[in-house]
Amino acid sequence: MKKILIPPSTELYIGRNLLTQERLYLGKLRTVLIADEGVKDLYAVDLAKRLHAELLVIPSGEKAKSLETATFLIDELFKMGCGRDTLLIALGGGVATDLVGFVASIYMRGVSLILIPTTLLAIVDAAIGGKTAIDTPYGKNLIGTIYHPKAIFADLDMLQTLPEKEWFNGLAEILKMGLIAEPAIWEMAEKNGRDPDLILKTIQGKIRVVEEDPREWGLRRILNFGHTIGHALETVSHYEMSHGEAVALGCAAEAHLSLCLGYLSEKEFAQILAMYKRFALKLPKGYARAKLFQAMAHDKKKALGEIRFVLIDKIGHAMLFEGACCRAVTQSELQPTLDWMESWKSSL
Amino acid sequence: MKKILIPPSTELYIGRNLLTQERLYLGKLRTVLIADEGVKDLYAVDLAKRLHAELLVIPSGEKAKSLETATFLIDELFKMGCGRDTLLIALGGGVATDLVGFVASIYMRGVSLILIPTTLLAIVDAAIGGKTAIDTPYGKNLIGTIYHPKAIFADLDMLQTLPEKEWFNGLAEILKMGLIAEPAIWEMAEKNGRDPDLILKTIQGKIRVVEEDPREWGLRRILNFGHTIGHALETVSHYEMSHGEAVALGCAAEAHLSLCLGYLSEKEFAQILAMYKRFALKLPKGYARAKLFQAMAHDKKKALGEIRFVLIDKIGHAMLFEGACCRAVTQSELQPTLDWMESWKSSL
Repeated sequence: MKKILIPPSTELYIGRNLLTQERLYLGKLRTVLIADEGVKDLYAVDLAKRLHAELLVIPSGEKAKSLETATFLIDELFKMGCGRDTLLIALGGGVATDLVGFVASIYMRGVSLILIPTTLLAIVDAAIGGKTAIDTPYGKNLIGTIYHPKAIFADLDMLQTLPEKEWFNGLAEILKMGLIAEPAIWEMAEKNGRDPDLILKTIQGKIRVVEEDPREWGLRRILNFGHTIGHALETVSHYEMSHGEAVALGCAAEAHLSLCLGYLSEKEFAQILAMYKRFALKLPKGYARAKLFQAMAHDKKKALGEIRFVLIDKIGHAMLFEGACCRAVTQSELQPTLDWMESWKSSL
Repeated sequence: MKKILIPPSTELYIGRNLLTQERLYLGKLRTVLIADEGVKDLYAVDLAKRLHAELLVIPSGEKAKSLETATFLIDELFKMGCGRDTLLIALGGGVATDLVGFVASIYMRGVSLILIPTTLLAIVDAAIGGKTAIDTPYGKNLIGTIYHPKAIFADLDMLQTLPEKEWFNGLAEILKMGLIAEPAIWEMAEKNGRDPDLILKTIQGKIRVVEEDPREWGLRRILNFGHTIGHALETVSHYEMSHGEAVALGCAAEAHLSLCLGYLSEKEFAQILAMYKRFALKLPKGYARAKLFQAMAHDKKKALGEIRFVLIDKIGHAMLFEGACCRAVTQSELQPTLDWMESWKSSL
């Protein structure tokens, strides 16, 4: 087991067979375990018993990351009489960690929080950095807070039961980290997408970025590479498309945009595209260019009505534009990339 | 005009005729003014025009401090296409500052916020310290965040149009500050409850407390004196009772509890009671002891199922109990105070 301190105040434990660790018992706090339906029988029931915790279960899937589910959880906590001396433990993928984190941050102005991410995506991305969120009909993650858990337990044993599709979801964020800041990660992934060292390296990369910019006013925005188009694709698909698929498509498209704007070389773009062709990339049902554009117009990175993109000038390097990490892109600059994406309707 | 820095990052401007100050224009941010219906014609329409701000209006009264109003505001902001580069200005009493503060803290994980409190209560209490909140059917302020505005403009000219009742609301929090930490404030208020120096002194008192304990894990809890019973009274009255009235009753009752538990002298209790008799103290319609008790059981200060109270041992001093600022009180210890409160059914 490895322990990593994430500023300002989170302890990350990564290793195998972590869930029996004493450290999970945080003092005399009343503990409520909130678990994704998908891991209820696999882990949640046992863990709740071991921790003498009450158990609440939320549905699986992005659709559960809603104000409705948050309100349901808050009502349950009130009914149980939970005070500020409550510890919420989130057990599940990014939906569970984002949603439970949000609830913990607003319930009685903040109660203690522990995250146990059970998917590769949540381990390398969602659980790290203190972002909490719920989705709205206007788009993904549009409501949320910055709130730091006391601890994160990343139990690699859990990944053994993870479906193939979930591996690709996590890999999409690993590759993104490679593209924007860590060329070594990209190289490792090109050789072996299953290399377990990728996990720790991606977490450490994210910690470095978040540490410099906890509230996302500057550098942290580079993490949004692939996400402007990615989030819009998810919205258009009504969240039927997984986050990883959407991010993979988004990264490919935003690499294409970087090429079209003259920042990225043909050669490196070809190298990037070759990697993403390993994914089964296709546009979601009901995709239409106008809908994508509308969904992007509600993106958080948008400033003063413009759509802003993080762009790369080589593998492993997101660009700076007069000190900012994103650049406004006009509709006509975006046109060639949208045209190119049309070809995905058949296959990539 | 006086400028006071409130840690970590809020500028408080207090004085007369502040709303024409240049400082209100925070850079190039898109500005949305969210105003209480009650000050719409008086100040909001003009101010919005002057700031080139869009104007949203919320209903007056505690009932507006709900998840429904928060959701309404968030939806309006989405419809207007507001991004993270938005500045929300709250104009109104404590309901507006608490509610808009909450919305600002969760909209796209936080946008810029300015508070313009228009009531004495909001100036001396609600606007200071970064607490945001909405009420739930389970009680007051049970959902919220800690989120600091960029600036607060406390324009004393606005108090000239304030109804008498609103003066008493503010005075209740001023007196509370006197009881828990600032004997000089209590003395001044005994001489002249309208002394304008009371305002600045109370703000400074609150800043001192909040500075030591921004997240309310310790000292800050003394600010809850009078609020355990006060909040419960508001809940029982379905928020028909004003916050100030409820806090005044709560302070009188919790001073009585301090007396019964042997901490406060008869003499000082009599002095305190004499002051609160200036208020028209009466129990809310539909009051029943059992309902009060149930409402208290959902209070945030409650730990492990106990009801906790801040207690005073003299005017100007809240007590410490083994380092904690509140003490668990059993139902039977509370009994004499609840009996005493029954007498308020007629009059105090």
